[in-house]
Amino acid sequence: MDETEMRMLLEEVASGQVSADEAALRLKREPFEDLGFAKVDLHRGIRQGIPEIIYGATKTPEQISSIAKRLLDNGNGSVIITRMDPSAVDLVSAEVPLRYDGISRIGVAGTPTAERRGKICVITAGTSDIPVAEEAAVTAEALGNNVVRIYDAGVSGIHRLLAHSDDIMTAEAIVAVAGMEGALASVVGGLADCPVIAVPTSVGYGASFGGVAALLAMLNSCSSCVSVVNIDNGFGAGYIASLVNRSACGRDRPTP
Amino acid sequence: MDETEMRMLLEEVASGQVSADEAALRLKREPFEDLGFAKVDLHRGIRQGIPEIIYGATKTPEQISSIAKRLLDNGNGSVIITRMDPSAVDLVSAEVPLRYDGISRIGVAGTPTAERRGKICVITAGTSDIPVAEEAAVTAEALGNNVVRIYDAGVSGIHRLLAHSDDIMTAEAIVAVAGMEGALASVVGGLADCPVIAVPTSVGYGASFGGVAALLAMLNSCSSCVSVVNIDNGFGAGYIASLVNRSACGRDRPTP
Amino acid sequence: MDETEMRMLLEEVASGQVSADEAALRLKREPFEDLGFAKVDLHRGIRQGIPEIIYGATKTPEQISSIAKRLLDNGNGSVIITRMDPSAVDLVSAEVPLRYDGISRIGVAGTPTAERRGKICVITAGTSDIPVAEEAAVTAEALGNNVVRIYDAGVSGIHRLLAHSDDIMTAEAIVAVAGMEGALASVVGGLADCPVIAVPTSVGYGASFGGVAALLAMLNSCSSCVSVVNIDNGFGAGYIASLVNRSACGRDRPTP
Amino acid sequence: MDETEMRMLLEEVASGQVSADEAALRLKREPFEDLGFAKVDLHRGIRQGIPEIIYGATKTPEQISSIAKRLLDNGNGSVIITRMDPSAVDLVSAEVPLRYDGISRIGVAGTPTAERRGKICVITAGTSDIPVAEEAAVTAEALGNNVVRIYDAGVSGIHRLLAHSDDIMTAEAIVAVAGMEGALASVVGGLADCPVIAVPTSVGYGASFGGVAALLAMLNSCSSCVSVVNIDNGFGAGYIASLVNRSACGRDRPTP
Amino acid sequence: MDETEMRMLLEEVASGQVSADEAALRLKREPFEDLGFAKVDLHRGIRQGIPEIIYGATKTPEQISSIAKRLLDNGNGSVIITRMDPSAVDLVSAEVPLRYDGISRIGVAGTPTAERRGKICVITAGTSDIPVAEEAAVTAEALGNNVVRIYDAGVSGIHRLLAHSDDIMTAEAIVAVAGMEGALASVVGGLADCPVIAVPTSVGYGASFGGVAALLAMLNSCSSCVSVVNIDNGFGAGYIASLVNRSACGRDRPTP
Amino acid sequence: MDETEMRMLLEEVASGQVSADEAALRLKREPFEDLGFAKVDLHRGIRQGIPEIIYGATKTPEQISSIAKRLLDNGNGSVIITRMDPSAVDLVSAEVPLRYDGISRIGVAGTPTAERRGKICVITAGTSDIPVAEEAAVTAEALGNNVVRIYDAGVSGIHRLLAHSDDIMTAEAIVAVAGMEGALASVVGGLADCPVIAVPTSVGYGASFGGVAALLAMLNSCSSCVSVVNIDNGFGAGYIASLVNRSACGRDRPTP
Amino acid sequence: MDETEMRMLLEEVASGQVSADEAALRLKREPFEDLGFAKVDLHRGIRQGIPEIIYGATKTPEQISSIAKRLLDNGNGSVIITRMDPSAVDLVSAEVPLRYDGISRIGVAGTPTAERRGKICVITAGTSDIPVAEEAAVTAEALGNNVVRIYDAGVSGIHRLLAHSDDIMTAEAIVAVAGMEGALASVVGGLADCPVIAVPTSVGYGASFGGVAALLAMLNSCSSCVSVVNIDNGFGAGYIASLVNRSACGRDRPTP
Amino acid sequence: MDETEMRMLLEEVASGQVSADEAALRLKREPFEDLGFAKVDLHRGIRQGIPEIIYGATKTPEQISSIAKRLLDNGNGSVIITRMDPSAVDLVSAEVPLRYDGISRIGVAGTPTAERRGKICVITAGTSDIPVAEEAAVTAEALGNNVVRIYDAGVSGIHRLLAHSDDIMTAEAIVAVAGMEGALASVVGGLADCPVIAVPTSVGYGASFGGVAALLAMLNSCSSCVSVVNIDNGFGAGYIASLVNRSACGRDRPTP
Repeated sequence: MDETEMRMLLEEVASGQVSADEAALRLKREPFEDLGFAKVDLHRGIRQGIPEIIYGATKTPEQISSIAKRLLDNGNGSVIITRMDPSAVDLVSAEVPLRYDGISRIGVAGTPTAERRGKICVITAGTSDIPVAEEAAVTAEALGNNVVRIYDAGVSGIHRLLAHSDDIMTAEAIVAVAGMEGALASVVGGLADCPVIAVPTSVGYGASFGGVAALLAMLNSCSSCVSVVNIDNGFGAGYIASLVNRSACGRDRPTP
Repeated sequence: MDETEMRMLLEEVASGQVSADEAALRLKREPFEDLGFAKVDLHRGIRQGIPEIIYGATKTPEQISSIAKRLLDNGNGSVIITRMDPSAVDLVSAEVPLRYDGISRIGVAGTPTAERRGKICVITAGTSDIPVAEEAAVTAEALGNNVVRIYDAGVSGIHRLLAHSDDIMTAEAIVAVAGMEGALASVVGGLADCPVIAVPTSVGYGASFGGVAALLAMLNSCSSCVSVVNIDNGFGAGYIASLVNRSACGRDRPTP
Repeated sequence: MDETEMRMLLEEVASGQVSADEAALRLKREPFEDLGFAKVDLHRGIRQGIPEIIYGATKTPEQISSIAKRLLDNGNGSVIITRMDPSAVDLVSAEVPLRYDGISRIGVAGTPTAERRGKICVITAGTSDIPVAEEAAVTAEALGNNVVRIYDAGVSGIHRLLAHSDDIMTAEAIVAVAGMEGALASVVGGLADCPVIAVPTSVGYGASFGGVAALLAMLNSCSSCVSVVNIDNGFGAGYIASLVNRSACGRDRPTP
Repeated sequence: MDETEMRMLLEEVASGQVSADEAALRLKREPFEDLGFAKVDLHRGIRQGIPEIIYGATKTPEQISSIAKRLLDNGNGSVIITRMDPSAVDLVSAEVPLRYDGISRIGVAGTPTAERRGKICVITAGTSDIPVAEEAAVTAEALGNNVVRIYDAGVSGIHRLLAHSDDIMTAEAIVAVAGMEGALASVVGGLADCPVIAVPTSVGYGASFGGVAALLAMLNSCSSCVSVVNIDNGFGAGYIASLVNRSACGRDRPTP
Repeated sequence: MDETEMRMLLEEVASGQVSADEAALRLKREPFEDLGFAKVDLHRGIRQGIPEIIYGATKTPEQISSIAKRLLDNGNGSVIITRMDPSAVDLVSAEVPLRYDGISRIGVAGTPTAERRGKICVITAGTSDIPVAEEAAVTAEALGNNVVRIYDAGVSGIHRLLAHSDDIMTAEAIVAVAGMEGALASVVGGLADCPVIAVPTSVGYGASFGGVAALLAMLNSCSSCVSVVNIDNGFGAGYIASLVNRSACGRDRPTP
Repeated sequence: MDETEMRMLLEEVASGQVSADEAALRLKREPFEDLGFAKVDLHRGIRQGIPEIIYGATKTPEQISSIAKRLLDNGNGSVIITRMDPSAVDLVSAEVPLRYDGISRIGVAGTPTAERRGKICVITAGTSDIPVAEEAAVTAEALGNNVVRIYDAGVSGIHRLLAHSDDIMTAEAIVAVAGMEGALASVVGGLADCPVIAVPTSVGYGASFGGVAALLAMLNSCSSCVSVVNIDNGFGAGYIASLVNRSACGRDRPTP
Repeated sequence: MDETEMRMLLEEVASGQVSADEAALRLKREPFEDLGFAKVDLHRGIRQGIPEIIYGATKTPEQISSIAKRLLDNGNGSVIITRMDPSAVDLVSAEVPLRYDGISRIGVAGTPTAERRGKICVITAGTSDIPVAEEAAVTAEALGNNVVRIYDAGVSGIHRLLAHSDDIMTAEAIVAVAGMEGALASVVGGLADCPVIAVPTSVGYGASFGGVAALLAMLNSCSSCVSVVNIDNGFGAGYIASLVNRSACGRDRPTP
Repeated sequence: MDETEMRMLLEEVASGQVSADEAALRLKREPFEDLGFAKVDLHRGIRQGIPEIIYGATKTPEQISSIAKRLLDNGNGSVIITRMDPSAVDLVSAEVPLRYDGISRIGVAGTPTAERRGKICVITAGTSDIPVAEEAAVTAEALGNNVVRIYDAGVSGIHRLLAHSDDIMTAEAIVAVAGMEGALASVVGGLADCPVIAVPTSVGYGASFGGVAALLAMLNSCSSCVSVVNIDNGFGAGYIASLVNRSACGRDRPTP
């Protein structure tokens, strides 16, 4: 409820159309529904333009399908479920329509939009970084973006990356995914003229410390357009890239 | 030189307009100028849409003014100089027109654009975070963006932040600047529907470890729209916010 | 034995009621019983007002039931067993009356008090934090406190937390349980007027480093009423909250 | 404004006593005052029972005296200023009545309460920990608590600590201050029957890592009643101890 | 394509032998082949004198044999596969000729060179370091170097190392492999007159932190000839030692 | 071979009793035997007064029994095998006489000395520390020392430790074993007048970081007589305590 | 007061020689004197055989001389003051007889014993480690031990160390002082048959992390006789070496 | 003295040319000279082919000139002094002929060789890395190598680096110097066919942690030819590059 709506409500109280009690109730009523184990944020679609995403990693199949159902019932066209274990697919798809992708481990319940806009590049340094990259790519696609995948283009053979300069230079947003020394983000950032969201991965061994080496490299990037998300957080990167691309393509945000 | 230009050049060789030697020279000539201590990247304006920024922290006043001059001479309207020591102002402003801001420690040489587009919010948790926030804000302004400042709105008095919900909910990009526990980014991220670039600051003591506590908090944000830059890197955040805002306002990128 | 008792004993020696040998024995006798693998601290009930708690994680079922029995025999009404593996339930409950809670993994042997005083709020940021929160809540209940649970009220949807302001503002003590960026503690601390005991959890991935990100955030909280216990230490938080609440409700400590 | 007041306001709108516009204004008006560089939280005294504390470390003398004045003018009897540099005393005391303590570096502006209740023990391991301990002690005294100081009672001469068992066992709250190995908190925690707030200090060298060794020791304390605040955060410990002691002595919190 | 070749191509364009289109294609064509999941760098043999090595740890047997085949087909005599799981041997050896070594977990596909030059010493501190050392030794042998193995010669019995002074003092390159305190590298470095490549291993427990103790020791070596590779990176050390030894023995690099 | 023996050898060369060739051989011959996978240090008994200990953790049963046999054959009365897996007992005891202790996981091959001297106290903070303590105690016993065990005497119930002051104050060496906050070492160190070897254990959770908290606490001990060994290194502590006790009891070191 | 004395006191009470009040007082009286800022532990000489040492680093000259005086007055022949700033010498030596050593920064007040027993070797890896080594050496000498100094004998020129094998092999205790990679301790430990107390120093740069590299190396030493003290803690090493040497030389501890 | 020389000596003893006493003396005489504060390793030139280098950082001017003199007197043509403070130049150059370079802070005493062989490239990412790079370059030149400097060629403008492919591809050894994210080493390593010695620098701020980010990136390089030295260790890199280049150019090592 924004200021205008509040004033309208108050005027209805002043004019007697709405009782003080009713108004108090409306002002107090929470825009979420409490399932006991989770408070489903039905308001997020309005507040942030993207419906709530279900983080599947720590939830039972029952909890996932129950939350997904509640969100679909509440008018969301589709619901993204991340880090969903393959073993949960059967139970959830029995309750709601579900498309599941085994590499990114993302499920999409309901009827996702078919529309695609703009261009997001998702680039990896090596083949081992692909699952994290797919989490970003599938997320971005489910949110209605065109995605170009450029995989295994690490900096130790720089020509493999330069061969894709065209796509890199015309993207609205780029997701750069790399483990080990994470140098990919800086080189890509030097070629691009759009935000580069860097995702360090836990790929590596020894002094990679589960992705810390790549994380630090990306935070210290000499390319000014690079920002960073958590280790292996492909979803977050795809989500942010989608915000940028949506914005570049002219989102239909209600003028405030 | 992009693919089209290369093909044009080759056709000129085929038609005899350009000799093979001349073409070899052009293909080889580097798009940067070597000052000895620095290779000035004259090409960046074309490649990234924003002219090279001078990182002033480790350069002598002589080096700064020499690079700035070379960039201005090469057709850039203005040049941003970050982390510029006040003691360098006299020498540099004797060589090039300079506007210097003492809080953000940013100098702008040349004639910056007066145009302003869109809306970027720069928010701080406390008063001590203001210098870093100003680095972001002044950078964003120098790059042609409207900036709204919301300072000292930390989460321990949440109403101070909520009072600015309107600006937060209508921004094209947000820079959230916080030291100590860095919780600001998550709360702002929960209210916004645009990318939030989080800047951890080194404000704090003891187990803040010079900004590490805030950095980790921001990397682990439960708000999906938050990405992070280096500790105290106000410039980078302002730069990325500008890329997002420019893109939202419809940049005039030459269609490739 | 306090100073008064010592003086009484000495007077009995002076008056010949007690021999020097007997007095030496009494002064030397230890207020604990040695089971070989453990020294049971029978004195703790007197010293600290709460009987010894059995840390079940590293003990065999036989050790647990043997210590529990010894404590019950020594006059304790009930004994709390934390981090108790479900597999130990059968053996222990064959020896002593036992109530076991599978989520918090807490067993209570003997006849716990039915009395409940005051109000402790236990709040979590997400659903994954619930097991740790339950360890705090069940501990506090076993120690005779009223507990209000507010779960999945993380800061990325701040209205979910604000909806419970009433409970937060009238609690005698609050336990704030959060993983990831741990921002919950600071926001709760800004609303409350009682001690907030923050429990970082190991929930998260990548740069959460098993709870370190939340731990650092909580230690750096800008809310002055926040203190912190070890990662996942729900028991400790429930115990301390109980001390505070007991004190607020007027404990019956023998005047010294 | 709590629910009751809101309902009253709405009833006044319904009855025509208050216009819709006036009500909208009142509902929107923020309970803080914006000084530009700081948003003074005038509401905190009501919300938390203790007026806002000024963290002096990063503020100019002008900022300190301006905030202090505003808080005093707003009806607060006194205002605590922590980490106040001695060089700021002259300027601030010219503007507001000020009592300054050089060891704790705490200033109290206005007329602090003379009333003292309960008992808080502040204990240090060594003489070097005294400045941090004094920050806790002076804070607690400024907030109206009786404080017993027990300094240089570290565990390498355990009899020095045991000599004070009486005070330790009858305190309502204890602040245990130690650097180096931080063992003091555990030993005190084993003797006490009240919450022990542990403050690691940066006293030490080498592998003390500026207080990290003590911090970790305290977080891992085998005594269940120990919670921890940031390194050198004497103020926070004194503040929390005051909350506990106030509560034990029967605070006059308005029944909700 | 180097400068000479480019000039030749341009002259062919000038003379009409090659069309502008054809030249553009050749200048653009990438020197790698894209298998979808991996971009095989066929150019590396020319660029670096050693064919691409397959890092087997994160690849399926199918991927390994497919890349190996492609490299062999492209004219490489043999292909090294590191960190190859024994379970992949059957499938890969069905597709390409394969020699597999179970201790170093290295497979060599194709017909490796029989030639051996110079002398590389591979030394370990303990018996537990042998698998990492064998990765270095087998790599170096597969690349055509003579290898002398000196195992279990740690510094706590310094005579065991000194007994091999002759080999150490006449090597062209030395690989020093050690876990725990990693002191071997410094002692060997003090005896040798050639580059010593130090490999920290994850052998150890407690404060060895999975090889960090050895890594730090080696980075801080007081012997100037010591450089370091990642923890357990036997392959990298063998590869670098081979570069040094090849160079010492007069490699047949085409004079530029 | 010490200086005297060398001079004797040279005099035998001078007198023609020994040929130059024979002398060169003797001077060069190594005092160890090479089994391929291990160089057995037969010289250690002479050099250090205690025969080589076999670190069993990373060796196969075959390797253990082969080394043990070789050491026994070479005149050692007994051989200590640490970190020996129970599964290796059958194979090893088929080859050499073996006594195996399941808690400390120590095997003693051959006929250990029955003699016992002096007094070493081994103290633990909790019951979970017992396996590490037993590694120290069994090692010390195998090396001929009297051992007094004081287990579960942690500092949160200080009277449990003080009850053993007599043993602590009369020991020749003390091994203090503790996980969690590791405070035991400092308290024991304040009571003792002999070296205290502190062993941090990996007992704990969360911010104990696998023993790092205890390790740091012990390194920072305010008791001057405390030195520290690696996390869980009971063997090392027992070995050093034995060196101290042997020395205190008058070892029979051949006067140099 | 030990058990025997307590029994004697009780018998005097029983016989009427001592009143119950007097006995209570004696039993309660603390064996330390409280100077306000410090509790001087007059009892330590009896408890630990070595008088209290004054840690000078954090004390004013006035505090140092006041504590030193009190200890000398109480019958101690001499008092060691460590980490004493040269600027404190004048004031302290005006109050008590003082010998000050500028390299070790140790002052000895009173009349130190001239007696010297046994042999302690203090060895350093480089010249930069000498100040820490001198702290150990001067401490050991002040406590009555013979000290042999072997400086700049690091492992990168192993013959420099082996040249001193005689002293190393006949010492009763060794202090090994090294920064950088800390390998010295392991090599010395492999030659010695007595306890080696290793002191990591903060000498080094970059990844030495102020002594952490050396500390970790020493904790992971493959030589069983090595234990470790805090970074730069020369005093502690000298103190422990003295305990060992004293014990080896037959200390005159009153038989319990 | 190698084996041949020892045998020769022994034959001289056998033939009576040398007495046993004289032989014992020679065998025992140390190949170093003890200046008290330092043991000068006169043997290193023979053992390692490069005379001892003086680490100037922790030595007084007097110590430097005294060691340098001793080395020059002992037949070394020149002596390299690293990390030499400018303030030491006057005193040292009064004693020995000295050439001092202010950027690398290297002094060369004596008459350095004028001969130059092979090619070493020293490359930096930015201008701030130049002092460390110069330490490598000047060291390599002093040791007789040709050096090509390529400065400010970081990966955010990759064309600046590719412009120097020719030099990179024909070097015998490369030193890659970079702070911040340290990506330079991987990109250079992908272009080169010789060993790349990577030097992380402490250039950067925030999460660069004084060079740790670059160090980790370099250790995790995906380019197999990269090994790493300590942070800011330009000298070590130049020294190792010299060993490689010398070896490639055919060093005149006496055949053993």
